[in-house]
Amino acid sequence: MKQTIVARVDLGMGEGKLAAQVAHASLSAYEEADRRAQKRWKGDGQTKVVVKANGESQIFELAEKARAEGLAHAVVRDAGRTQLDAGTVTALGVGPADTEIVDKVTGDLSLY
Amino acid sequence: MKQTIVARVDLGMGEGKLAAQVAHASLSAYEEADRRAQKRWKGDGQTKVVVKANGESQIFELAEKARAEGLAHAVVRDAGRTQLDAGTVTALGVGPADTEIVDKVTGDLSLY
Repeated sequence: MKQTIVARVDLGMGEGKLAAQVAHASLSAYEEADRRAQKRWKGDGQTKVVVKANGESQIFELAEKARAEGLAHAVVRDAGRTQLDAGTVTALGVGPADTEIVDKVTGDLSLY
Repeated sequence: MKQTIVARVDLGMGEGKLAAQVAHASLSAYEEADRRAQKRWKGDGQTKVVVKANGESQIFELAEKARAEGLAHAVVRDAGRTQLDAGTVTALGVGPADTEIVDKVTGDLSLY
């Protein structure tokens, strides 16, 4: 089991900002997963991997792939209180789900 | 309402690693909160703030303060698969809870 969080590298977010957006994506995608997947993932050490996307369109493409695979996922938009304009797409959470299926969507992306 | 995640700055974690640890602390502290606090926080835009700690002892001190205030909180230890030794304390999630009470514990720390 794993969860992958895809975060935009092109926005130049500071590391605290990035971490908060990744946490938001992680929690939101987690809540989309069914209870069984949630429990299995937590029992399994709740592996999280953070990878890079180069822009908004890539985030949407990956979200569409996740949807097609039936994977729990969530796109995060920033509230715009600091650093970014309100509504800026910053990250995508995929899973928790079986590693193999998550990797079909995000397996080609580089580690952040 | 807010959630604060305190992360160690002295470990020299890479930004993806930091983000994953912060996400772990966020989710774990969230699950310690009662359902009413969870719902209010999410309805309120689930504000997350990431701040710095300088070492393990500061994390434990802050966790003890959070406990004394009756705040949901969770200390994260790394699984040790990459970068850090297994069991290394990396972060502390505090809340979600009323901003005023969270700030009693973490209000003096610098933004990450």
